[in-house]
This record gives sequence, structure tokens and C-alpha cells, in this order.
Amino acid sequence: MGYLIDNLQYCNWSETVFRQMRAGGMDAVHVTIAYHETFRETVLNIEAWNDRFARFSDLIFLGRTGDDVRRAQALGRTAIFFGFQNPSPIEDDIGLVEILHGLGARFMQLSYNNQSLLATGCYEAEDPGLTRMGKQVVAEMNRVGMVIDMSHSAERSTLEAIQHSTRPIAITHANPAIWAPALRNKSDTVIRELAAAGGMLGFSLYPHHLKGKSACTLDEFCQMIARTADKVGADHLGIGSDLCQDQPDSVVDWMRMGRWTKERDYGEGSAAAPGFPPMPDWFRDNSDFPGLGKGLRATGLSDTEVAGIMGDNWLRFYDSSFGAAP
Amino acid sequence: MGYLIDNLQYCNWSETVFRQMRAGGMDAVHVTIAYHETFRETVLNIEAWNDRFARFSDLIFLGRTGDDVRRAQALGRTAIFFGFQNPSPIEDDIGLVEILHGLGARFMQLSYNNQSLLATGCYEAEDPGLTRMGKQVVAEMNRVGMVIDMSHSAERSTLEAIQHSTRPIAITHANPAIWAPALRNKSDTVIRELAAAGGMLGFSLYPHHLKGKSACTLDEFCQMIARTADKVGADHLGIGSDLCQDQPDSVVDWMRMGRWTKERDYGEGSAAAPGFPPMPDWFRDNSDFPGLGKGLRATGLSDTEVAGIMGDNWLRFYDSSFGAAP
Repeated sequence: MGYLIDNLQYCNWSETVFRQMRAGGMDAVHVTIAYHETFRETVLNIEAWNDRFARFSDLIFLGRTGDDVRRAQALGRTAIFFGFQNPSPIEDDIGLVEILHGLGARFMQLSYNNQSLLATGCYEAEDPGLTRMGKQVVAEMNRVGMVIDMSHSAERSTLEAIQHSTRPIAITHANPAIWAPALRNKSDTVIRELAAAGGMLGFSLYPHHLKGKSACTLDEFCQMIARTADKVGADHLGIGSDLCQDQPDSVVDWMRMGRWTKERDYGEGSAAAPGFPPMPDWFRDNSDFPGLGKGLRATGLSDTEVAGIMGDNWLRFYDSSFGAAP
Repeated sequence: MGYLIDNLQYCNWSETVFRQMRAGGMDAVHVTIAYHETFRETVLNIEAWNDRFARFSDLIFLGRTGDDVRRAQALGRTAIFFGFQNPSPIEDDIGLVEILHGLGARFMQLSYNNQSLLATGCYEAEDPGLTRMGKQVVAEMNRVGMVIDMSHSAERSTLEAIQHSTRPIAITHANPAIWAPALRNKSDTVIRELAAAGGMLGFSLYPHHLKGKSACTLDEFCQMIARTADKVGADHLGIGSDLCQDQPDSVVDWMRMGRWTKERDYGEGSAAAPGFPPMPDWFRDNSDFPGLGKGLRATGLSDTEVAGIMGDNWLRFYDSSFGAAP
């Protein structure tokens, strides 16, 4: 063991970013390939990734299984895993779950910030839990081996997804709300239920999810992880940095507003600060990733616990999650 | 005045059906052109209608305004108005409301039987009301002159649509639940609030919405309308027959299951009776429409009230609803 995995990034992808992945020794990165994209638009995004895989084949390749992470480390490359932050790529069609799994998709959020056809997002006033279609799609994702991700979902929907899913689910990028009370962060109840069901929590470095936002220190971030490990053990914890390196602010507008509103929505931002917030100076790109391990060791977590959080836990989860249900 | 309007049909369209419209003296029919169709699929359905308008130009034409109903009567033809039973044609894109209005759409249900991106359907276990996107889309429909239809929506979503909309809304095809307690039928609260806000209720002849189903008599149906008029007045009442003439049972499967489930869903039917139920023998096609007027007069409703219910009320509603907001 001893793998480095960041389970959520949405950078403005470039040779620079991929070389920083290699500089950081990243064995795998789960990348978002859809926020509000339809099926056809998602396929266009996969085409763009196919082009990157061809152009930068010495740096990256498409990952489909846990073994691809091991292969990446052996080859000195980074395995790229696809995921969606919204179920928009399946549109209203449950048959697209299997199609998109075949194209490489391994994680799908049941909702982004708003109500979806499947579940409720954390910015809605009400949360009715999983819908009729949501329950059907959870079963289908379980069947084919696509992981249910509830990072942006509301509380009841998240608890129902944990209960309804026959396989462990993930919250790929969020922090405990008790530490930083953002709507996007998660209650202790959710974190305990998630871990008790074998699921994974990826800690986020997106400043709106951090105590003190961009001013949060490495020690504060790592202490937050260590205190969560005290509560639920270290085996169900990992990193999902939400790194959005080099993205223009037009991208955060797309994330927040998609095509659903004619009025401006600032999401976690505000009229005074509508764009991407600056990242903490100790986590600006993939080459900073190993520094998280040093910070975690300084909290007193064991080497094995730190190795788990830095990637081995995600690898174990990939091994058991990405194939068809037994 | 003295117009005949059926404000909901989804027949297997043919020259036979259009000739029956003329035999019945129908001045206008609101036809469903989408149950679960995407935008592109809806455009294909409009293309099919353009073909019918060209082939049967002596019988039908596309209606866009109330004046088109008057023109239809003057010409001895039937004006066809487009509507959707689900917001699937706008997908996740509020900009498609104006586009589809431009293509002729005049009614859109905010949800069919399930949760949509906008509101909740009557078969969901929970009803959280209008979503964030739902409120935005209601405002956009109000702006361009597309009528909000809550026929298949759940109670709270329906009440919130009535309240949130700045223009009167419609329930194009449903009956009072107090008369026939189907999930699809409407509470007295909904009917009163709808009428108080200037909205319209179209009474349905679909057997699952009738007391006694296919055995319901003309007199029972007309007494139900008269008793509703006692409560809310006759001015907000019309007909929305839900006539699905000549459709194969595969069509009711599409209505109920779309692409959202891999399990069978029987909707208002059952495993023992999964198909379309037989229509009452006094309402089998458009040529039977005038018979409803005779039945209504027999209940003691006045000639003016009957003329209103048979079409004049819908025409008044068309006049005030289909244009841009003042």
C-alpha cells in the first residue's frame, strides 16, 4: 500500500496540471466531468478527455478499477476516474446509468445544489428524500458499480441514500458542519451513518468549506480530520480536495446557475465576492498534496492511518465499488 | 359566444379523429404533445403535427391565441393547441420556455406523476412544493404566456403554484376527489383556491378519474360538474376529457414508466388491468362532445353556464393567458 488519491478535482486541465500531479506523486484523481451537462454534452467532455489521454499518455490514463491505481503507480502515471456532480448526464433515462458506467463513470451525485429527479440538494428549502426515480436509480447504480455521491445533497436525502443503497456510498468532498457550518458541510449524524455503512468521506479544501476559509491553516485542517477519525475511525476517511485550479470565474457561475435560473445565484459566494475564493497557500496544486500527509502525521495519527487517509482507503473502496454487484 | 373546446386529448391522431372533431363541432382541442419527451423529441412531435396540419388543412390548424378559436369556428375547422404533461421538454433549461412558446406550446404541467425539477407529482410519497427552479420557471411561464397546468401534481405543489403564479393557472384534466377518490383527483381546497385565483378546472372523462370508472353515467358525470359549480361557480369550469382514442396499450406504458424505472409501474391501473380502460359508452370520440352539453342542461344549469363549461370559459381563459404578461 501507500497510494496517493485525491477523490475530487475540477481543474482547468492542462499539461501543467498533469505534470503537477506527477510532481505530487498522485496515483489517482477522481475528476468531475459534468455539473449540469446533458448526456450528449457529457459525451463531448469524455471526447475532450480522450484527446488529453492521447496527448499526455506519458502522464495520465483512464482508470476503471482499483487495479488501475496500482498500474498507475507502477508506470509512474496518474489514473483519472470520471464522476458527475449532478445526475444530469442520465437525463430522465435510467438506462443511461449502465451506458455511462461503460464509458468510465464511477461516481454520480444524486443531486447538486437543487432538487433533481432523484434527490434534493442542500440549497432547497425542503428535503423530501429520495424520489420514486431516485430509488430506482440507486438500485441500478448498485447493480452496475457506480458510486452514489451525496456531497451536495440535503440531509434527509443523504440519510435515505445511505439506507436505501445496498453498497457503501461516498461523500467525495465535504467537511463536518460542526467544524465549519456551511450548508454544504455534513452533520455528525450523516458522517456517523455514512461510516457505519462502510462509506467514505473525502475532506474538502475548497475555502467555502473551511473554517476561516482561505486563511485556514494546514494544522487546523488536519486537526479537523484527526477529530473526525476520533469519532468514526480513520478507515472511512480520505481527501476530495475540490481543487478548481486555473478555472475562470465563469466556471463557478456555470456550477451555481447552470441553465435553471434567469436571476443571479451566488451559491456559497456573495455579490461582494462572486468568484472562486483563493486556495490556502499550502494547497495550490497537486504538487502540494504530499504536504497533507505531513500535516496529518503532526496531529498524532499513525503512519497507517495517514496512509489510509492519503489514498489507501479510497483504493480499498474503489476495489469493492466499481465492479458489478456480486 | 357558443364555442366548443376540449382542453385535453391525447388520441392516436388520424383523419378519422379529425373528422370526428368536425362532426362534433369542436372549435378547439388542446392536445398533449409530450409526456416524457426531451426538447429534441418534442420538436419531432411538432414536426409530425406540421405534417398533419399540411395534410388535413381543411380540418385543423395550429392555434396560438383565443382569436384562433373564433377563426376556427368561422372557417369550420378545429384549432389545435399544444401542451405538455411534464416539463421534460424544457429539460434543465429555463430558456426553453420561451423557445417552446414560440413553437406553439400553451400549457405545461410542472410535474407528471413523479418529482420533476420543478414540482412534485401525485404518486410521490412526499411533496415539498415548488423547487428553486420551479419558482424561476413559473415566473418565466407567466412572462411569456405559457399556462401552468397542475393536473398530475401533488397537493402542496399545486397550492404553491396557484400562490406563486402571478397569472391564473389551470388543472386541465381532473375531477373532485370527494366524488372519485383517485390520487389524480383534486381536493376541495385545491379547487376552491384555483377558482378564487381565476384559474380553470377541466373535468376529465378518463375512467380512472370517474366514479364507477367506465360504468359512470352521463348524468352522474354532469351532476358532479353541477355540484362543483354550486361550490365555486360555473365560470371556472370546463372540459378536459383526457380522450386517448385508438391508442395502443404501449402508450399507457410510456405515460406511466417513461424511462425512469426498470420495474413495472401500473399507475392508476393494476397487474390485472394494465391497459387503457374502456371509455363510457356516451363518450367514445369527439362526435360525442355535444352530448355533454345536453347532460349539463338536464342538471338544471343555465344555458349560459352550460355554454361556459362547454367552451366559452376556456376561450376567455385563452384570451387572457396566451400572450406576454402586460
